[in-house]
Amino acid sequence: MTRAEHREGLQLQSTITKGGQLEISLATVETPSPGEGDVVIRVEAAPINPSDLGLLFGPADMQAAISGGSADRPVVTAPVPAGLMKMVTARLDQPMPVGNEGAGIVVEAGASDAAQALIGKTVAVIGGAMYSQYRVAPAGMCLPLPDGTTPAEGASCFVNPLTALGMVETMKLEGHTALVHTAAASNLGQMLNKICLADDIALVNIVRREEQEEILRSIGAKIVCNSSATDFKDRLTDALAETGATLAFDATGGGTLGGQILSCMEAALTRTTTEYSGYGSTTHKQLYVYGRLDRSPTQLNGDFGMAWGIGGWLLPHFLQKIGLEGAGRLRARVAAEIKTTFASHYTAEISLAEALELKTVAAYGKQATGEKFLINPSKTG
Amino acid sequence: MTRAEHREGLQLQSTITKGGQLEISLATVETPSPGEGDVVIRVEAAPINPSDLGLLFGPADMQAAISGGSADRPVVTAPVPAGLMKMVTARLDQPMPVGNEGAGIVVEAGASDAAQALIGKTVAVIGGAMYSQYRVAPAGMCLPLPDGTTPAEGASCFVNPLTALGMVETMKLEGHTALVHTAAASNLGQMLNKICLADDIALVNIVRREEQEEILRSIGAKIVCNSSATDFKDRLTDALAETGATLAFDATGGGTLGGQILSCMEAALTRTTTEYSGYGSTTHKQLYVYGRLDRSPTQLNGDFGMAWGIGGWLLPHFLQKIGLEGAGRLRARVAAEIKTTFASHYTAEISLAEALELKTVAAYGKQATGEKFLINPSKTG
Repeated sequence: MTRAEHREGLQLQSTITKGGQLEISLATVETPSPGEGDVVIRVEAAPINPSDLGLLFGPADMQAAISGGSADRPVVTAPVPAGLMKMVTARLDQPMPVGNEGAGIVVEAGASDAAQALIGKTVAVIGGAMYSQYRVAPAGMCLPLPDGTTPAEGASCFVNPLTALGMVETMKLEGHTALVHTAAASNLGQMLNKICLADDIALVNIVRREEQEEILRSIGAKIVCNSSATDFKDRLTDALAETGATLAFDATGGGTLGGQILSCMEAALTRTTTEYSGYGSTTHKQLYVYGRLDRSPTQLNGDFGMAWGIGGWLLPHFLQKIGLEGAGRLRARVAAEIKTTFASHYTAEISLAEALELKTVAAYGKQATGEKFLINPSKTG
Repeated sequence: MTRAEHREGLQLQSTITKGGQLEISLATVETPSPGEGDVVIRVEAAPINPSDLGLLFGPADMQAAISGGSADRPVVTAPVPAGLMKMVTARLDQPMPVGNEGAGIVVEAGASDAAQALIGKTVAVIGGAMYSQYRVAPAGMCLPLPDGTTPAEGASCFVNPLTALGMVETMKLEGHTALVHTAAASNLGQMLNKICLADDIALVNIVRREEQEEILRSIGAKIVCNSSATDFKDRLTDALAETGATLAFDATGGGTLGGQILSCMEAALTRTTTEYSGYGSTTHKQLYVYGRLDRSPTQLNGDFGMAWGIGGWLLPHFLQKIGLEGAGRLRARVAAEIKTTFASHYTAEISLAEALELKTVAAYGKQATGEKFLINPSKTG
């Protein structure tokens, strides 16, 4: 490939204007010349993860989104409610490139040995701006994929696999022995089930719909509780008593579900208690909120004693906590099992222009039901 | 004092009947003979702390309390809402003695040297059942008070002093450098102010009313925010930016206050940020709920990024965490400063019978406004 061919490329950008409008569009941007230690990657696969949606949509009201522009340069616009504009002061009128992770082919490299060694290789990268035809990145940030792995197979090497492994590591680090997971039929939730089955860890899956129960049972999940069922709390308490799970990861964040989980944990712990304690069980119950699929306020009834904690859980903070060595160990497992445990399945592989079709955009928020899209910025049409 | 004189004594007891009724009454109970290492304490002072109310009232509706019985054997009754009966299954129809801490005179002792050495001494004890005329306790549980200290002065040696010191210790252990405290005009809150002034720790006090602001300013509090003021959030954010406080202790538990504190901490941390981050500040913000003055559900808007935690904080759990040596260090400071930093002030010193007068009972819940009662079980009439 000659330099001329990738001198510039398309990039998906999200802008929130001072006027209170979200605009998602495609721009032609110049590909910077790689520095000595850099490579230029032709991106061929980048997933749309739930963690991309914060930057992609901001706090815009996507129910009111409309499409415009042309067929090859579509533009999606949506209003940002006035009360939420203060959340995005720091990004106003700045076109933000999007896409946390992806994979592609190294088409150019700086002079260093490390960069030169990657020429022609298929590599995965996490670092933002992956919904771009070309992405310049330091060679050290690239994870070379095993021979025979396609960019599509390696596109989701980081966010979901490391999050799922991070949940299991957190469980061990904090002295718990079983897990609860909400929105459990998601791509991430399916991976977590595969890990827990392989590692013999009890996992209580919580879903909202029957078809999600079926997705999970079809991949071997043993315990699935449906939060829409009338006997949900009893079933969940049974599952918690059976597994002894005192740690939950919640993707929903808002509403009453997180508090219900803590309350059912407490009920499971005190089922066999005969002595009265006004402070409840002394066993610590922990809920980590790692997503916010439900944007309504979180409500806690407080009927779970005094030994409890709730906190935000974010992959980069967790990786920092376990250090380079710990993160390296997790990455090695992902690379080794990328076609099995950590295989991702996509609803469709789409071009950058197709990524801005209104019906597709509307589906990005439905990942709890298993919908997941893969953008191939090199795909035309 | 002869054995005959303290063969039996009055004891305050709280019972919740299977029929859904709370009954608080006085019973004559036999004083057990002390074992070899035990002493018999004639209790002369035991405070009513907020932490006593859970056992005293249970989940009864105290707005609907009525009084009965006779002048020297009053009975307070109140209905327990049907939906809350499951919280108290383990205590149904059992008369529970109440009173976490108190002080009195040792009037009898077992044969051991340690027990005999306490005869005639004024001692403080934590361990429950202190709203009793006589309390048998192991000698090792007794804290002998410095000469010249009355039981009234030593009655509140443990719960509030150790909780206030525990907050400061928690701050240091978890790497914070300043504190926020709600319901800050309480007896506990006043102690915390004295400690923070002495130790040069910045403390942001949150109160609900102007007269509470005045109480705190009169003892030297530097920063007081009134949550009823229209500019509360701005003032709190200013105070958090000024002090750098990222740890709060909340006595209210329910409602929106806890979430507001986290949200203002985040606003203070990101005030000077110029780069946009969808995940908010990376500085961890922590809220500990140590009381539940507000029994409505806790509501969190979630506008405080991903680096946050909320948890229950309970003195016994904390003391266990810091171990015997740590607890000993805190107790030594309390004993040394019992007439200054840790001096408690009481609304009134009352007898066991007076403790069950309806207007007094109604005031037990108002400790955030500084009301605090001291029961003297040895007082007659």
